[in-house]
Amino acid sequence: MGKGRLEAFSDGVLAIIITIMVLELKVPHDVSVQALAQLWPVFLSYALSFIYVGIYWNNHHHMLHVTQKVAGGVLWANLHLLFWLSLFPFATGWMGENHFAALPTALYGVVLLMAAIAYWLLQQCIVAVNGPECALALAVGSDWKGKASPLFYLAAIPLASVSPWISCALYVAVALIWLVPDRRIERRLAADA
Amino acid sequence: MGKGRLEAFSDGVLAIIITIMVLELKVPHDVSVQALAQLWPVFLSYALSFIYVGIYWNNHHHMLHVTQKVAGGVLWANLHLLFWLSLFPFATGWMGENHFAALPTALYGVVLLMAAIAYWLLQQCIVAVNGPECALALAVGSDWKGKASPLFYLAAIPLASVSPWISCALYVAVALIWLVPDRRIERRLAADA
Amino acid sequence: MGKGRLEAFSDGVLAIIITIMVLELKVPHDVSVQALAQLWPVFLSYALSFIYVGIYWNNHHHMLHVTQKVAGGVLWANLHLLFWLSLFPFATGWMGENHFAALPTALYGVVLLMAAIAYWLLQQCIVAVNGPECALALAVGSDWKGKASPLFYLAAIPLASVSPWISCALYVAVALIWLVPDRRIERRLAADA
Amino acid sequence: MGKGRLEAFSDGVLAIIITIMVLELKVPHDVSVQALAQLWPVFLSYALSFIYVGIYWNNHHHMLHVTQKVAGGVLWANLHLLFWLSLFPFATGWMGENHFAALPTALYGVVLLMAAIAYWLLQQCIVAVNGPECALALAVGSDWKGKASPLFYLAAIPLASVSPWISCALYVAVALIWLVPDRRIERRLAADA
Repeated sequence: MGKGRLEAFSDGVLAIIITIMVLELKVPHDVSVQALAQLWPVFLSYALSFIYVGIYWNNHHHMLHVTQKVAGGVLWANLHLLFWLSLFPFATGWMGENHFAALPTALYGVVLLMAAIAYWLLQQCIVAVNGPECALALAVGSDWKGKASPLFYLAAIPLASVSPWISCALYVAVALIWLVPDRRIERRLAADA
Repeated sequence: MGKGRLEAFSDGVLAIIITIMVLELKVPHDVSVQALAQLWPVFLSYALSFIYVGIYWNNHHHMLHVTQKVAGGVLWANLHLLFWLSLFPFATGWMGENHFAALPTALYGVVLLMAAIAYWLLQQCIVAVNGPECALALAVGSDWKGKASPLFYLAAIPLASVSPWISCALYVAVALIWLVPDRRIERRLAADA
Repeated sequence: MGKGRLEAFSDGVLAIIITIMVLELKVPHDVSVQALAQLWPVFLSYALSFIYVGIYWNNHHHMLHVTQKVAGGVLWANLHLLFWLSLFPFATGWMGENHFAALPTALYGVVLLMAAIAYWLLQQCIVAVNGPECALALAVGSDWKGKASPLFYLAAIPLASVSPWISCALYVAVALIWLVPDRRIERRLAADA
Repeated sequence: MGKGRLEAFSDGVLAIIITIMVLELKVPHDVSVQALAQLWPVFLSYALSFIYVGIYWNNHHHMLHVTQKVAGGVLWANLHLLFWLSLFPFATGWMGENHFAALPTALYGVVLLMAAIAYWLLQQCIVAVNGPECALALAVGSDWKGKASPLFYLAAIPLASVSPWISCALYVAVALIWLVPDRRIERRLAADA
């Protein structure tokens, strides 16, 4: 089974998710700096989610680059990941419109957590299909980033009731950790060449 | 005629359908667990339709994988399928917003039925173009899934007036039957290799 | 210059246009057969526009299939076509929501006319780049369909003030003429093979 | 790392941006020439932004055509460009709905400026990865267009408070400068062949 269509479909869904999120940045009806300033939290939450979707696209790109075989289970693990990513516009909009209130900020963390678990499941599924000696398995190695991120989210969700800003700081911290593209895979490829 | 653009266009439309459906999950204006809880039926109907579109994408992917020739008629049979699939967001939104009321739940079944018929027509059309000995014809075989699904929908539509939950149970049952990717085609391919 | 990205971008825009049009089919707030029946004109206008976009996609697909060279001018002629096609959702929504009133039905014809002219310009542009002996020039031949369609639209636009149904009949007639895929190109390809 | 998926993802996002902008052209509720005439500024701003996105797509297409290597930094420089382009629908809608008022017209210039800077950064990033003797570096040369455009925007932003029409004239002027596809790259390719 070719991975081309899997990549194309995922790219399509990710491209639409990233662009649909901007629709939450609703055009204000009046012309004033105040009207624009009120959109500030929506803009910030949009920028954060844009970076997250960008990270997922980037890592997805790297992961499939070193994948050989794509069997039936991988297609569904991929759709499962896209399902949770498709909830980003909703979670982002609710958090932004309510100026980072506790409950929406916690829900944002839940969606991040589910997407992280789905990504990890997809990775396991690809390794299961391609064998423990496949390029992806070797490149990912101990995968401390993939293991640390859910812990950050798990901490951030209840902490939103203390202060949503702590949760947001944790979300930003995880984004910064991942912002560096998955050098493990690039290094592995360079070592093989 | 190359099938590449047919796949790309279908992927594009399916990716947009799957993502547009999430727009029915409208961001609530107030911050409360109740506001979120009220979205529960919309979320459930979204998840069900996401799985259905995923099944269609998956089977479409498998079907075109074993297709050799794509003539004019196939392009239109494919557009016909996409037409009915494009009504999923509407049917899903109406059913979810009205908490699975009888009429919207029946209409959802009508759209599922039309999509199933359109998929069957597309399959017949591809077999007609590629000959009765083509890989798809051999792989599909007796096609009991394709024949049983419309019967389930036909039963579910009138039963919605008795209880929409019976209809929903039937929709979920069909989804579960299909959730397993089309092993017939994978098995056939393995047998040929 | 490769035509792959031109096809991919056009497919993307056409896929989004076709799917965005369905958003005009707004989910009714109440649950009744009447609420659904009121959507009938919107549904009909959506179906007509879906077929039109399908025709454009189909013919675009055939046209680029026999195109060799894609120079700068072709990219802009293609964007010009996409511009007018991108107005389909607006024109369709206005016509459907106002139950085929005279003015929106005339405007729909204007958009159809502009898209037809843009398609013809793109065809001329490709022939100019590829030479009068190229496959497209030979396949298109006298191009009576391409020449007749704008005349139909030109007649339909003023006739909407007499009766929008005459205009609609003309729009449907043109769609039926084109619904047959561009056999000229397929025949030509078969003759060459 | 293949550039195919980078192109596909960018095409997807650009296709969606260009089509989402048309959603700001909201279907009027009444049927009259006046209702349509009121949409004139929204239509004009849509047409201007359509041309701008077309220019970006065109130049992006040319730039990646002569790019050999796509490393991690390029992926993020590309996402950064897409981020600013994704704000086009918002800036376009606000400017059009407020009939080219001073503040939205200035904000439109800010988004144009940021996109131009992001495009320049992406170009620098590609040249850094591919070396100063790469095809892109030679083709771009002194890049007077890329250097002049931000100056036009920088002038247009404050001038909007004097008269938004001066700003708009500057935006149109820059669009006209770029409307010609990047002949530098085409000429370079022809010279190499």
